[in-house]
Amino acid sequence: MATQRAAELRRLLARSYPWAKKSFIVGAPMRIMAGPNLAVAVSAAGGLGFMGPPAKPDGVLADLDRARELVSASDLRHPLLPIGVGFQVWNGDLKIATSAIEKHKPCAVWLFAPKNGQAELDEWTASLRGASRDTQVWIQVGTLGDALAAVNSSTPPDVLVVQGSEAGGHGMTKESTGTIVLFAEVADAVKESGIPVVAAGGIIDGRGVAAALSLGAAAVAMGTRFLASSEARIAKGYQDEVVRASDGAKTTLRTHLYNHLRGTFGWPEQFAPRTLINRSWIDHEAGVPFEKLQTLHDEAAKSGDAGWGPEGRLATYVGAGVGLVRSVQDAGEIVESVRNEARDILKALSDDA
Amino acid sequence: MATQRAAELRRLLARSYPWAKKSFIVGAPMRIMAGPNLAVAVSAAGGLGFMGPPAKPDGVLADLDRARELVSASDLRHPLLPIGVGFQVWNGDLKIATSAIEKHKPCAVWLFAPKNGQAELDEWTASLRGASRDTQVWIQVGTLGDALAAVNSSTPPDVLVVQGSEAGGHGMTKESTGTIVLFAEVADAVKESGIPVVAAGGIIDGRGVAAALSLGAAAVAMGTRFLASSEARIAKGYQDEVVRASDGAKTTLRTHLYNHLRGTFGWPEQFAPRTLINRSWIDHEAGVPFEKLQTLHDEAAKSGDAGWGPEGRLATYVGAGVGLVRSVQDAGEIVESVRNEARDILKALSDDA
Repeated sequence: MATQRAAELRRLLARSYPWAKKSFIVGAPMRIMAGPNLAVAVSAAGGLGFMGPPAKPDGVLADLDRARELVSASDLRHPLLPIGVGFQVWNGDLKIATSAIEKHKPCAVWLFAPKNGQAELDEWTASLRGASRDTQVWIQVGTLGDALAAVNSSTPPDVLVVQGSEAGGHGMTKESTGTIVLFAEVADAVKESGIPVVAAGGIIDGRGVAAALSLGAAAVAMGTRFLASSEARIAKGYQDEVVRASDGAKTTLRTHLYNHLRGTFGWPEQFAPRTLINRSWIDHEAGVPFEKLQTLHDEAAKSGDAGWGPEGRLATYVGAGVGLVRSVQDAGEIVESVRNEARDILKALSDDA
Repeated sequence: MATQRAAELRRLLARSYPWAKKSFIVGAPMRIMAGPNLAVAVSAAGGLGFMGPPAKPDGVLADLDRARELVSASDLRHPLLPIGVGFQVWNGDLKIATSAIEKHKPCAVWLFAPKNGQAELDEWTASLRGASRDTQVWIQVGTLGDALAAVNSSTPPDVLVVQGSEAGGHGMTKESTGTIVLFAEVADAVKESGIPVVAAGGIIDGRGVAAALSLGAAAVAMGTRFLASSEARIAKGYQDEVVRASDGAKTTLRTHLYNHLRGTFGWPEQFAPRTLINRSWIDHEAGVPFEKLQTLHDEAAKSGDAGWGPEGRLATYVGAGVGLVRSVQDAGEIVESVRNEARDILKALSDDA
């Protein structure tokens, strides 16, 4: 029964993204770093690429213009713009978002991190649906409570993304757990809704994709792995760290320190970003005052790529699975290789079972 | 390549436990609660059941005597005693363990939680191997560093168990992460050793089993699920909680409070148990002094099954996946059902890929 339901939800989701191949790979909307080049490359490889929020809310318009050009030059043909657009709700601009969606009609939006819970997500959902009826609304949650609030709201999403605690960037500060548990419990709790559930958090390679599909995921979102793609909008020093770092259980943690060092304040307290540990954190733990850390951080920011690394000081947001990322590849190559790995793993296990 | 290697390691492990069916399900050695009845029931169902440490080290002899009787009355036939025995190393008694293993020659021992790292595990491994040459040594780790120390030691284990942070009972206090990431990174790091790797932590049902196999696990260990088995050596009040509780991300945490309330001190600081939150923790957080908590705890202990529950005060060690445990079943039924679920899931995904 559960197996059949999972298959139905996979098919239901796939119908809205007819170019997407099995297994359905999603490029997560990492802020700034998932730009139009990455999003279109993921979709062109038979996945679904999301753009993340740009540095300023109105940057989404230029990114969408660029994405449209890239799609036109690709083999992708679809009535809607065949990529998704991610919005960080708490400090997003709903007016700009709505007009951007109205103009470009992407196939999906991905909403994350409201300040005022489901009510704010409902407001965004209604406004964006008003702007583009066929654009699907994906909502990312990190707790069972938020998942239930989303599917039971007056304005439920079309797709629910469940993010386990292994995820990089902003996730739940606490009250989360690993994808292997969280996904299954949420999927069970929302099954009556008939809403497809996508897994995110700690999925880096074909093993993770096959594991997430086994848990019942209708699609699998990857973020950290795409930071190490040719198309990521990322500094070389940062990307080198994504490839170099290992043992994310020990070398990453969730803290707002780097947000604050970059001058970003106001994140709702339930969210905090997972980052690689470097000198800023080590010195902070050793009691160096924030003002001093900020001075050192700002100097590091001027040093370019040398600002990252174990002795660097800049924010290096990655997932706990960073140790499984071992080289920079084209995004299309990543999508294809993880899809093939997952297929081979599932076939071998099925034959052997 | 990776798929082939995973298949080879599954076969290698299975050769030592010829009664075990695919997918290889292991009953984890929960202290006290995994007694001879549970261990033998898991093995009799085509898995491998481990007994956990009893309340006092010399209790292992009576448990092994009882296990031998149960095995004799079962269909299990094997030159070694076809169950495993778990030892908590830091406060274990190596002399008693060695004589027990020498007398009963179980097919496996599972070593966990040394006070002095790999050196202590080496000492135990050498002594137990001296007592029973064919008994396989399983070592449980929760970090990449401990995994590398184990496989690179002068006395490497026969089997490595990787426990993700979702696990119940004692695991890593920090520097761990979810099974979906930790397992894959450890498996890659130790691949040259040729040692089979078993996944533990957050695996409750056939979805989790299929996911763990997808990650490359040679076998899959489950603990919390077996707390809700007819054969578990567990108070009814405790077991009722395992069935009742949900949302383990929110309702469990790792703390030594309950160890201390029970009078257990001295755990190496890198380990702490995951427990359901109840009044003892809530009052502790509210600033109630330890002495008062202890008085209330000891009163609760006298109240029997009422000592557990959201308003109870007793230690209720469970994994973060406790919400996926929904009824008490016979252990053999659990083993068979998760095996069948996993097989169906893998077949459906393979057919659909």
